[in-house]
Amino acid sequence: MMLNPADADFAAALDGVVPSGVFREIEPRYLEEPRGRLQGRAGLLACPRTTQEVAALIRAAHDARVGVVPYGGGTGLVGGQVLTEGPAPLILSLERMNAIRAVHADENVIVAEAGAILADLQAAARAADRLFPLSLASEGSARIGGNLATNAGGVNVLRYGNTRDLCLGLEAVLPDGRIWNGLTRLRKDNTGYDLRNLLIGSEGTLGVITAAALRLAPIPARSGTAIFVVASPRAAIDLLSLARDRVGEGISAFELLSGQGFDFLSETLPDIRQPFDTPPEWCVLIELGLIAALDPQEQLAELFEAALERDLASDGLIAQSEAQRDGFWMVREQVPEANRRIGSVSSHDVSIPLRALPEFIAKAAERISEIGDFRINCFGHLGDGNLHYNIFPPKGADRTAFKAQSGIVARAVHDLVAEFEGSISAEHGIGRSKVTELEIYGDPTKIAAMRAIKSALDPQGIMNPGAVLRL
Amino acid sequence: MMLNPADADFAAALDGVVPSGVFREIEPRYLEEPRGRLQGRAGLLACPRTTQEVAALIRAAHDARVGVVPYGGGTGLVGGQVLTEGPAPLILSLERMNAIRAVHADENVIVAEAGAILADLQAAARAADRLFPLSLASEGSARIGGNLATNAGGVNVLRYGNTRDLCLGLEAVLPDGRIWNGLTRLRKDNTGYDLRNLLIGSEGTLGVITAAALRLAPIPARSGTAIFVVASPRAAIDLLSLARDRVGEGISAFELLSGQGFDFLSETLPDIRQPFDTPPEWCVLIELGLIAALDPQEQLAELFEAALERDLASDGLIAQSEAQRDGFWMVREQVPEANRRIGSVSSHDVSIPLRALPEFIAKAAERISEIGDFRINCFGHLGDGNLHYNIFPPKGADRTAFKAQSGIVARAVHDLVAEFEGSISAEHGIGRSKVTELEIYGDPTKIAAMRAIKSALDPQGIMNPGAVLRL
Repeated sequence: MMLNPADADFAAALDGVVPSGVFREIEPRYLEEPRGRLQGRAGLLACPRTTQEVAALIRAAHDARVGVVPYGGGTGLVGGQVLTEGPAPLILSLERMNAIRAVHADENVIVAEAGAILADLQAAARAADRLFPLSLASEGSARIGGNLATNAGGVNVLRYGNTRDLCLGLEAVLPDGRIWNGLTRLRKDNTGYDLRNLLIGSEGTLGVITAAALRLAPIPARSGTAIFVVASPRAAIDLLSLARDRVGEGISAFELLSGQGFDFLSETLPDIRQPFDTPPEWCVLIELGLIAALDPQEQLAELFEAALERDLASDGLIAQSEAQRDGFWMVREQVPEANRRIGSVSSHDVSIPLRALPEFIAKAAERISEIGDFRINCFGHLGDGNLHYNIFPPKGADRTAFKAQSGIVARAVHDLVAEFEGSISAEHGIGRSKVTELEIYGDPTKIAAMRAIKSALDPQGIMNPGAVLRL
Repeated sequence: MMLNPADADFAAALDGVVPSGVFREIEPRYLEEPRGRLQGRAGLLACPRTTQEVAALIRAAHDARVGVVPYGGGTGLVGGQVLTEGPAPLILSLERMNAIRAVHADENVIVAEAGAILADLQAAARAADRLFPLSLASEGSARIGGNLATNAGGVNVLRYGNTRDLCLGLEAVLPDGRIWNGLTRLRKDNTGYDLRNLLIGSEGTLGVITAAALRLAPIPARSGTAIFVVASPRAAIDLLSLARDRVGEGISAFELLSGQGFDFLSETLPDIRQPFDTPPEWCVLIELGLIAALDPQEQLAELFEAALERDLASDGLIAQSEAQRDGFWMVREQVPEANRRIGSVSSHDVSIPLRALPEFIAKAAERISEIGDFRINCFGHLGDGNLHYNIFPPKGADRTAFKAQSGIVARAVHDLVAEFEGSISAEHGIGRSKVTELEIYGDPTKIAAMRAIKSALDPQGIMNPGAVLRL
């Protein structure tokens, strides 16, 4: 069933459906994605201001059988926001629906529209003396609707969960234009199927999220940050275990960094101050957020002593000031930028059962070295078993020369992930870049069920066509 | 589309599909539910031992268009486990699939079959020095498959979440007999729609859960239990807020008890030792689970001092021994039994946005007093905004005399819940008892989407017919 383009006829059909001011010129940024690898298409760009306008647009697209690409901050890394082939779609940007509708500080709930920028949401929570824990590199431009649509992860998942775990209720427009008002702020509600979690992570293919009720957390009374040098990924995991025994739920982040990452930073961003004169092969960045009765400096110092005793850490730095803390995090946060400047042959967002992670890292390096002479930057959210596993050409070589090997390298990594019962997309989603991988590595019964659900809720296939499931 | 009964023809069709030992005599307990209000029907009872046998049975039922009622521990309170009308179904009991398949203590994961009894799962976790946090009154007979199918709640939701929050992966048989192997133990996996959460809470209407990978938590190094007398539900909520500021995520449970509950206990279970000579009108049971660096007795004592200062508590008891702790919890856990012995006119499992909860309690009492002279026992999981709101005849009167008013009372409570944007089923589910309520109070767009999903995954409607959605 072929879709129709969002052409002049469709534009005419929309006349009077929503005010003409809803439509905007399609600037190039709506057709690009952060890594510059895909080129999108569009016939029309709509920037509705209300849920009713979103519903009217979707209903019209449904009637005319025109594809709709929901658009948040455009920061997705798997092409979910750019439609690259087929009839030009309607891009539906939520950018004008960016209100914080309510902050219920005493209930630890914030209600925001889908277009709210993540950093603004964090700020609104902070203004009410609360924490909205979702935190990721693109938070200055990512919008919460996109975070929800992709079930974004980030650095605080270990303690607070993925985006789905932070969501209590949704308001959304389904593919026939009907509005679902599920904007509850209840902690417990067992009245029927979990439509909320079905929409979260469906990457705009089952409807458009227009608003969400989200969990807040108390801001930890005291926090502390440290970098510990560890001998190996295995030592890092044992250190996490030790830290958990000692401070329980107080560990907000536990990030792995590799020597290769430090080298890339030196090479591409020499102004960034690095914590060690000689970059260690492996280290972890630990963030604690504790209650007033506990001293984070003391806890980190004691943890370091205990780790030293058990040969789990050989060196360490505990941030002594806010500036030093920011410096540690700057290093972590700029690693993706350094990677981008080096230019990867192939980059992966994988998760592995925690216990098997060290073996995966060793085996993956082995397999890649069999393919050729590459550099590997393996880093990420160790506490979640989530590695950003990126492969680069040898020093001095240009990645274009290795383009031909990119598919072979990717296949080798993903095959190994499958052998380890891991995930080929831990936090970025499927989008359009990983549709084939999902077909290869996904459970066939699950994919058949996904297709059945998609056909049931969106029989015309207008919602984000070609994302997650092949047309 | 009428279903066929699980009759002699169907039994003949099953010959050779699974070994004959899979079939058992249908004892009366499979046709009853805990409150004795519904009478089930069945044509056949199958107790498969493997996922393959479950798949073969479902496939045969699918081909013959015979209804299937999945059966766990039979402890559900909304009739999801008993089919009361229509063609006699196949009851599919998971009781023989009760293996703990694996304990990954270092990953905080346990993998169990659906028929594992909740208490056995807790014990298996404890044997590995871990905590499986799901805890509820029926844990001695409830099976984890049923807990998942109904997204059970219980006393530790405040800290550890509902059953869905404890589940990492599922193995399930879909309504066409295909096996979905989604038994991942990953913390992050964004590869397609969230089939796991769709099955969790769908009460057996979208498939049969056969196994699950579940989260474990470290056992808190030190724990403490207290009962504080509070002046009102408002004071209880403010006390929770104060406790959160002081001990953060260390609060494992925060339960509200009413004076009426204590009176019912005295009346029906006089041997249970009550904490106060004169039952207070309201009190809360607080459980702390802390890291080694914090002393729970000290934290509770300081919390009490702070609460006293702010007029949030007037009296309190901190358990000084394991026996005293068990005594406090015994009181809480026997309240439902006391209620059962008194005999309610109408009982409700509702949740209300936390801030509005005191107002709800006041208004509900008002509305019920307008209907007649009733006694109310309002208690439950205050930290989750979840009240068990039960209405009883006046002292000395028999509930049968008030039978006629039960519908009016229920309607008054649920109307008020809707006015407060609460849930008419916080943790028990819809089953068959609340199908009409879901139709009245549910969002119509959501219900339409649920119907579409049900038809897509189970076009013949064989899975737990009449539960959640009307036939």
